[in-house]
Amino acid sequence: MREIVIGGAQMGPIQKADTREAVVARMIALLEQAKGAGCDLVVYPELCLTTFFPRWYMEDPREVDTWFEREMPNAATRPLFEAARQAGIAISFGYAELTPEGRRFNTSIFTDREGAIVGKYRKVHLPGHSDYDSDRAFQHLEKRYFEPGDLGFPVWRNMGALMGMCICNDRRWPEVYREMGLQGVELLMLGYNTPSVNSQMADEGPEKRLYHSELTMTAGAYQNATWVVGVAKAGSEDGHPLIGGSVIIDPNGYVVARAGSEGDELIVAACDMDACAFGKTTIFDFARHRRIEHYQRICSQTGVVTPD
Amino acid sequence: MREIVIGGAQMGPIQKADTREAVVARMIALLEQAKGAGCDLVVYPELCLTTFFPRWYMEDPREVDTWFEREMPNAATRPLFEAARQAGIAISFGYAELTPEGRRFNTSIFTDREGAIVGKYRKVHLPGHSDYDSDRAFQHLEKRYFEPGDLGFPVWRNMGALMGMCICNDRRWPEVYREMGLQGVELLMLGYNTPSVNSQMADEGPEKRLYHSELTMTAGAYQNATWVVGVAKAGSEDGHPLIGGSVIIDPNGYVVARAGSEGDELIVAACDMDACAFGKTTIFDFARHRRIEHYQRICSQTGVVTPD
Repeated sequence: MREIVIGGAQMGPIQKADTREAVVARMIALLEQAKGAGCDLVVYPELCLTTFFPRWYMEDPREVDTWFEREMPNAATRPLFEAARQAGIAISFGYAELTPEGRRFNTSIFTDREGAIVGKYRKVHLPGHSDYDSDRAFQHLEKRYFEPGDLGFPVWRNMGALMGMCICNDRRWPEVYREMGLQGVELLMLGYNTPSVNSQMADEGPEKRLYHSELTMTAGAYQNATWVVGVAKAGSEDGHPLIGGSVIIDPNGYVVARAGSEGDELIVAACDMDACAFGKTTIFDFARHRRIEHYQRICSQTGVVTPD
Repeated sequence: MREIVIGGAQMGPIQKADTREAVVARMIALLEQAKGAGCDLVVYPELCLTTFFPRWYMEDPREVDTWFEREMPNAATRPLFEAARQAGIAISFGYAELTPEGRRFNTSIFTDREGAIVGKYRKVHLPGHSDYDSDRAFQHLEKRYFEPGDLGFPVWRNMGALMGMCICNDRRWPEVYREMGLQGVELLMLGYNTPSVNSQMADEGPEKRLYHSELTMTAGAYQNATWVVGVAKAGSEDGHPLIGGSVIIDPNGYVVARAGSEGDELIVAACDMDACAFGKTTIFDFARHRRIEHYQRICSQTGVVTPD
C-alpha cells in the first residue's frame, strides 16, 4: 500500500480584472481545506493564475506579456508555495511561462512536500488557431500565444510514486498517456480550461463536452493502469462558460471523485499507487503484448495518408 | 451523405460439439434478418465458426488443426458467401486461419457486396499465455495457438468508405485505432469473445468487463472520428460465459445501437460516413495538431522503462 491522499482543487471562474493576488488567496483557501481533509497533494487547473486569456485576440506583444510569468515562484505565487511547504502538501498547477529568451509556453509544474519544484511540463497539443477566425463563435488562440512544448512527456519519482503531467487538450490524445505509460506512470495530473460549447459546432454543448473529457481520461487511465487527476477551471469568465467535471480516476478507469459545481471545489480521494500493479502486469503488460513493428505510422507520419 | 446501413450480428454461444454447418445456418438466418432491415453490411464476431477453443488446452497439433480453416471460403462457409452475394450484402467475420505453410492466425475478412474478399486482417494483440497456467480460473491460450498477425492494420476503400478491422483484445490498444486513423479510417469492424470474468481477478465480473469493452471502443471512435462496430460472441459456451454488449458507435464516441441479449441478435444503424469529417478536420486534424517528435517511445520501446 502506497497511499497518496489527492485533492483536486477545481477553481471557479477568474475574471479578466481579477488580480493574481486574489487568485492565489483562493488557491490558499483550497489548500487549507485540503489540509483539513488530510491531503498529501493538491492539483490545480491549467493557467490557473488568470482568466483563460487565449479567448482574447491581442496584437500588442506587451499586452500579451502581461498574462505571463517570468519566474516561478514569483512575488504573486510565493505565498502559495510557502503555505504548501508549511502544510507539508505537494502542489501542481499551470501557468503561462515566458522564458528569459522570450519564448512562451503553456506550462505546469509540481512540487514535493517541501515546496521545491520537482517537475515541469510544457503543453504539446495546442488547440485552436493562430490568427483571428471570424467563423468561430469565439476565439481560441493558443496556437498564437504559445509554442508547442519542447520537453516531451517526462515522468518523475515523487512521494514514492511515478508522476507525470499533461494539460487540457493533451488529454484527448492517447499518445500522451502511452508515452508516460511506457515510463511506468502511476499518477497523471492535468488541468483544463474547456469552453462549454464547441466554438465550431454550436450543438456540441456542455453535456457532450463533459462526456468527451471524461471518456478520454478514463480510457487513458485504464489503458495505462494509472491514476488520473483532471482538474477544471470552470464557470463563466466574462460571459464565456467553461465546463467543470473535475475527476479523480482509478487505474481501472473508474471515476472515484467528481466535482458537482462550477466553482472553487475540492474533491478528495485516497489513492493507492499499488493499485496500478494489476493492470501493468496482466492485460497491459506492455513488454509481453505490445507489437511496435506495427505502430510505425504513429511516430513517422503526422497527418492522414489514405490508401488510395 | 454516404450512408451505409450496418448490421452487427451478435452470436450466442457455440458449443464444442456444434458443427460449422449449424453455425453457418445461424449466420445465414441473421443475414436474412439483416436483409429485411435494409442492411448493406453485416459484421459477425471473432472466431465465429466454432466455440472459443483457446480456452481448451491441447497438446496434439492434429487436434488443434481441427479448429482451423485451410481456405476461405470453404465448403462450410460457401453457403454464407452465396447468400450474402445474392442479397447484395457485404459481410465481415473472424475465423482461425491455417496457411498452406502451416502458420496459424486469428483472422478476419470482409467482402464487397458481390461476396469477393476485399480485406484480410490477422490479430496482432494476442492476449493470454502459451503454456498451461494453473493459477488461472480457466485457460486463455491464444499465445499458444496463434502467431501475432503479420499484416499490420491496413485500411481499404469499400462501398465508398475507408474500412479497417481489428479483433477482440486489439480494441483495448489505442495504437490500433490510431494506425487506422492515420489512414483516414471511417468504419472499423471488430469481433470479440470476452470471458465474463477475468481469469486472474475473480471480482472483475461482467459489469466491469462490459464497461472496459465499451470504454475502449468509444474512446477509439472519438479520438479518430470513425464509426466502430464491435460484435460479440456471447453467452455460455460449455459452461464458460462470454459477455455480449455488441455496439455500433458513431464518430463522436456515442453508442447508437447496443445488443440487449447474450444470444443471436442483430443490431442495426444507418451510418453516414460523412459524419467522420467534422472531427477529422477540427479537433482531430492530425496534420495540424499531432507532434510526432514527442511520440518516439511508442514505436521504439516495447515495455516499460522507468526514469530511475
